[in-house]
Amino acid sequence: MGRYELGYPKDATNLVKRHGERGTYALEKIHSLVNSSQLLHVSFNPPNSPFPVILPMIGQMGSFDRPSASLGDPLDLYIHGYVSARLFNAGRAASAGEGEGMPVCVAASHVDGLVLALSAFNHSYNYRSAVLFGHATLVESEDEKMYAMELITDGVVPDRWRNIRLPPTRAEVQSTSILRVRIASGSAKVRDGGVADDRHDVEDEDLRNSVWTGVVPVYSTMGEPIPGPYNRAELPKHAADFFDEFRTGNKEQAIAAANRKD
Amino acid sequence: MGRYELGYPKDATNLVKRHGERGTYALEKIHSLVNSSQLLHVSFNPPNSPFPVILPMIGQMGSFDRPSASLGDPLDLYIHGYVSARLFNAGRAASAGEGEGMPVCVAASHVDGLVLALSAFNHSYNYRSAVLFGHATLVESEDEKMYAMELITDGVVPDRWRNIRLPPTRAEVQSTSILRVRIASGSAKVRDGGVADDRHDVEDEDLRNSVWTGVVPVYSTMGEPIPGPYNRAELPKHAADFFDEFRTGNKEQAIAAANRKD
Repeated sequence: MGRYELGYPKDATNLVKRHGERGTYALEKIHSLVNSSQLLHVSFNPPNSPFPVILPMIGQMGSFDRPSASLGDPLDLYIHGYVSARLFNAGRAASAGEGEGMPVCVAASHVDGLVLALSAFNHSYNYRSAVLFGHATLVESEDEKMYAMELITDGVVPDRWRNIRLPPTRAEVQSTSILRVRIASGSAKVRDGGVADDRHDVEDEDLRNSVWTGVVPVYSTMGEPIPGPYNRAELPKHAADFFDEFRTGNKEQAIAAANRKD
Repeated sequence: MGRYELGYPKDATNLVKRHGERGTYALEKIHSLVNSSQLLHVSFNPPNSPFPVILPMIGQMGSFDRPSASLGDPLDLYIHGYVSARLFNAGRAASAGEGEGMPVCVAASHVDGLVLALSAFNHSYNYRSAVLFGHATLVESEDEKMYAMELITDGVVPDRWRNIRLPPTRAEVQSTSILRVRIASGSAKVRDGGVADDRHDVEDEDLRNSVWTGVVPVYSTMGEPIPGPYNRAELPKHAADFFDEFRTGNKEQAIAAANRKD
């Protein structure tokens, strides 16, 4: 930790207006939400279309210039995805031009629970969501591409990179496209805690006796690993540990969110 | 089921280009992916911003004009969310204008597993993702708003609506904003099955002996419901059944995806 916590400046783009008390602008919080998301949603405007497009993609925050940077430091977002032809074409066009790159929005969201109330109106979710805005360009340098491929692979399973076949072949590196997003702005929003109903509903004994109220924790988990047909290896400890941590960490997070008091 | 399966026409907006064999355009498949997603990601272009914006929101497909419509029929998407001031303002402006509404993209994505290969390049995810494009306008009619509130509440927990305090107060209805998206186009993409590496890697005995390959199922689940401080009711059977179904259904889906053969 540094001496102070960096935050993205609030402006018209990233300001959390509704329930502003749930908003946060701290880089560390936002970046860690992004890095713990298996899937990111990336939006951009393709040329000649009236609609923005959202693609589900895989990505991680990092710094090629300063790989030892921590999550609370200014970082770039590196993204990769199979569903990406249009995005990468648009990114390539933006890279070739004079501009800063293609404007994108990236969202990382976790559902932590269903909040079930007496009235429909007071139903809610516990959730954590982060959004980043920035300019995307294609990574051209092979060194930076390798850095990003390692970062993203280790984002799937920590330490996976140095436990697989290395180095990637030249053909593999050339046919992998990586986008780097220079972050312009971002924010996160968190809802946690229990259920809250209006007083006139809570004072209605019949209603309280008939409608169940509370929180149902929701979280992502992992099943038993299923070895492939040509597997001959034991599941390594670093991977088994990560799967366990994923299971218990997400569950504990959802239960802690449900029990949080203001 | 009708006599034939309806599909969204392929065009430049919705065409699945990369791995086209994984694409599908069937309304039933796309709509059921949307309705089984606890969170949707909605993208739109706010006025005076260079960036598209993504908001995580709650929504369900339905038809106010023909409530008995099935998932494979043409449907509208009704969305609701607390994080919505800018989206609703933009939607209100679009509704007031002459146009068809605000162009939006909506994504619904499920991760089903990590596919761990010998090479970084052949790593993948099992996933199901749907994307819809359409024009959003604010729902003005109170009847349609009530229809959508019921639809969305029952999307959180089936049958929840008729088990809570009814009707909503006038103030609740007035302060709830619902957007209706008229769908213009959509597609879905599914990756399932096991791991597949290049032959030269598979033929490398040392590599196969040292790198674990296979699929790790990933799915969303629910913990034990946590009653709130003023709860006096038993958890109703329809809710308990749904939580069980959510737990086992998602788990079975992830395992089936891992074991699927071409």
